[in-house]
Amino acid sequence: MSFNTDLVVGVLGGGQLGRMLLQSAININVDLKMMDPDPNAPCSTLVSDFKVGDLEDYDAVYEFGKQCDILTIEIEKVNIDAMKKLQSEGVKVFPQPEIIEMIQDKRVQKQFYKDNNIPTAEFVLTDTRVDLEKLISKFPAVHKIGKGGYDGRGVQVIKSKEDIEKGFDAPALLEDFVPFKKELAVIVSRNEEGEVSSFPVVEMVFHPEHNLVEYLLSPAIIDKSEEEKAKQVATDIIKKLELVGILAVEMFLTKDNEILVNEIAPRPHNSGHQSIEGNFVSQYDQHLRAILNLPLGDTRTKISSAMVNILGEDGFTGDAKYEGMDEVMKISGASVHLYGKKLTKPFRKMGHVTITDPSLTSLKKKIEVVKSTLKVKA
Amino acid sequence: MSFNTDLVVGVLGGGQLGRMLLQSAININVDLKMMDPDPNAPCSTLVSDFKVGDLEDYDAVYEFGKQCDILTIEIEKVNIDAMKKLQSEGVKVFPQPEIIEMIQDKRVQKQFYKDNNIPTAEFVLTDTRVDLEKLISKFPAVHKIGKGGYDGRGVQVIKSKEDIEKGFDAPALLEDFVPFKKELAVIVSRNEEGEVSSFPVVEMVFHPEHNLVEYLLSPAIIDKSEEEKAKQVATDIIKKLELVGILAVEMFLTKDNEILVNEIAPRPHNSGHQSIEGNFVSQYDQHLRAILNLPLGDTRTKISSAMVNILGEDGFTGDAKYEGMDEVMKISGASVHLYGKKLTKPFRKMGHVTITDPSLTSLKKKIEVVKSTLKVKA
Repeated sequence: MSFNTDLVVGVLGGGQLGRMLLQSAININVDLKMMDPDPNAPCSTLVSDFKVGDLEDYDAVYEFGKQCDILTIEIEKVNIDAMKKLQSEGVKVFPQPEIIEMIQDKRVQKQFYKDNNIPTAEFVLTDTRVDLEKLISKFPAVHKIGKGGYDGRGVQVIKSKEDIEKGFDAPALLEDFVPFKKELAVIVSRNEEGEVSSFPVVEMVFHPEHNLVEYLLSPAIIDKSEEEKAKQVATDIIKKLELVGILAVEMFLTKDNEILVNEIAPRPHNSGHQSIEGNFVSQYDQHLRAILNLPLGDTRTKISSAMVNILGEDGFTGDAKYEGMDEVMKISGASVHLYGKKLTKPFRKMGHVTITDPSLTSLKKKIEVVKSTLKVKA
Repeated sequence: MSFNTDLVVGVLGGGQLGRMLLQSAININVDLKMMDPDPNAPCSTLVSDFKVGDLEDYDAVYEFGKQCDILTIEIEKVNIDAMKKLQSEGVKVFPQPEIIEMIQDKRVQKQFYKDNNIPTAEFVLTDTRVDLEKLISKFPAVHKIGKGGYDGRGVQVIKSKEDIEKGFDAPALLEDFVPFKKELAVIVSRNEEGEVSSFPVVEMVFHPEHNLVEYLLSPAIIDKSEEEKAKQVATDIIKKLELVGILAVEMFLTKDNEILVNEIAPRPHNSGHQSIEGNFVSQYDQHLRAILNLPLGDTRTKISSAMVNILGEDGFTGDAKYEGMDEVMKISGASVHLYGKKLTKPFRKMGHVTITDPSLTSLKKKIEVVKSTLKVKA
C-alpha cells in the first residue's frame, strides 16, 4: 500500500500545539488546514490554508470540516454537533466527537472514571454554589466547574466555610482533596487499527499560586511499580474510550502510592512537549501517526529531559519582548520554543524551553538558570 | 538586550533545506520569506510569504532582498551582483556574497585552498577539452567543471585517454585521483561576533554509480587524531573565510591518513540532516543562530545516527508515490522526512530517513531495511 500524502487534514485550533503539530506534519509531507478565531494565532502565518473562524460555531466548524478527509483538534472547546454531523458524512473525526463531548464536562468525565473502575478521587456533584453549604464535612476539597474550565481556571480549593464564596454557582463537582506526593502525566495513543502505545511517565512540578505547570521532568523519578501502574491506568482509559489519536492523562501519586486520575485531554498536551527532543518519537509525531492510521512510533526516552514553560511576566501586557534569550541559548541542551504570540499577558503561555541532559543534577541546575533568566515583558 | 523576533529573514531557495530551516525558525519565532523559481517548491505551501522568482536574475534577487533585514541562501546558484548590491545598502547577507561567488567556481575554490595551505588534492586548470590531451600522464584523474556542477553533475572520472571525450569543454580543473579510505564531512559555523563551532565528523558512503550519498554515519568511525585533524581543517577554512553562517566541508581521509578537502558548501547540507535527531542542536538551528548573531549551540552527539537519502526509483517519472512507509515507520528510531516534491524522477532526492540507535550493529541493520523497503515510484 502506498502512503497517501494527499489527505486533507484539518485542525481545529491554531495555537502552540498546532504549531508543533505542523512541524511534525512537514516531515511526512501532510499539509494541514487550520481554523482559529484569532487572525494572529501562532499558526496563522505558517499554514497557507489558515481560516479565521469560531470553533464553537456549528456552521464555521461544519464548513471547515467538510473540506477535510480527517479532522482533528488541538483544543477541546469545539462545536461537537458539527463534528458529529461531519463524522456521519464520512469525515474521519479523531478524537471522536463523543469523547471530546464527554471530556468537555468534568462531571461526565468523573462519572466515566467511576463507571469504568478508573481510580480517581471521590466526588459529589453540585448544581449551585449553595450546594456547597451542605458539604462542609468534606472540606478541604476541590471545587471544579463542569464546563469551560481551562489552564487552572475553573478550579478552586475550598479549605473551609469561608471559601464557599469562591465556589462555582454553576454545575460543578466537589472532589476530595488528595494529599499527593507527585503529579504525574502519561501520554497514550491509539490508532484506528487499535494499536496502543504509552510514553514514559513524566513528573510535573506546579507553580504554587498560578496552578500552571512550572517545570516537568521526563522520565518521572518514581518506582518501577508506580511507573507500570500509571501506564496501565492510562492504557485502560484509551482502550475503554476506543479513542483514535493521543490522550494525555494527568494523575496524582498519593502518599499511599495510589494512582488517581485527575484529568484527561484528547490531544497533544503541555506535558508532552519535551518528547520532541527527549524521545524517539514526539507526541506530535505520534498524534499524526494515530489519526493517519500509521504504525505508532517508539516512545522510549532518548535522553532525560526537563521542560519549563515560558509565561508572560506578571505586570506586563502588550507586545511581547523576550529577555535573556542569549543566556538561555548558551545552555548546552536547551531548546527554545517560542509560540509566536504577539501579545504577552501575565502568566500567558508564551513558549517553553526543553533541556536535555543525562544528569539529573545538571538538568535541575539548568532549569533554575532558565527560570531566572528568560523573561517575557512588554 | 531583548531578542528581536521581528527581523525579516529572507531565504533564496525554497527546497528541502529551506523546509528544514523553516522548522527550526518556527522554534524561535522568526518568520522566513522565501523565493524559488518553482511555484511547487517544497516550501511553497509552508511560507505565507513565498515568492516565485529566478534566483540567478539580478532584479528578482534584488527586489526580494530589499525587503529583508537578513538574506541567506539554501542553494549556491544565486545572483551574486544583486547580493553585493544589497549588502552595500545595509542588508545583512550571510553567507557573504564574495564567499558564495568563490565557491560557485571550483577553480577559484581550489586556488583558495592552495593559497591558504588548506590540504586538498593536487590539480591543474583546463580551459577546453583539448587541454586534457596534454595531461594523459596524470590519469586516472577527476575532471571537474568550474561553474554549474551540482549533486554529482559536473564531475567525471577520467581513467584513460579513451575517457577524454567525457571531459568538459569549458573551464574546468583536473584533480589527482585520491585513493581514499573514507569520505568525511564536517559542518562548522561562525556567527557575526566570530564565535566558531564544529559538529562532530560524519562519514559518508556513496552510491558507486550515481555519486550521491547513499547513507551517512554520525559520528564517523575514525581515530581521535583523524577527528581532530578534520575539525581543525574545517575550522581553519571558516575562520579564513570569515564566513557568517554554516559551512559544510567534504573531505577525503586518504589511505595515508591525510585529510584532503574535496568541496565546501556555505549552507545547511545533506551531510547534516541527521543532526535534527542525533545532536543537541541541528545544523538548521545552528545556521539561524549564526546569521542572527546568537550564541552557537552545543553540537555534540546526543545519540549515534545514520541518514539514508530517499531517491526517486530508477525508471519512474511522475507524481510521487511512497511505498513501504508503514514498514519504515515501524523501525524504532526511524524518522522519516519527505520533502514534499510532487514529481519524482530517477535518483531525485525526495526525502531522507534518519535512524537513531546507540548500537552501530543495529543501526546498520536498520539502514538496510530502509534501503530495501522505502521506494518512491510514480
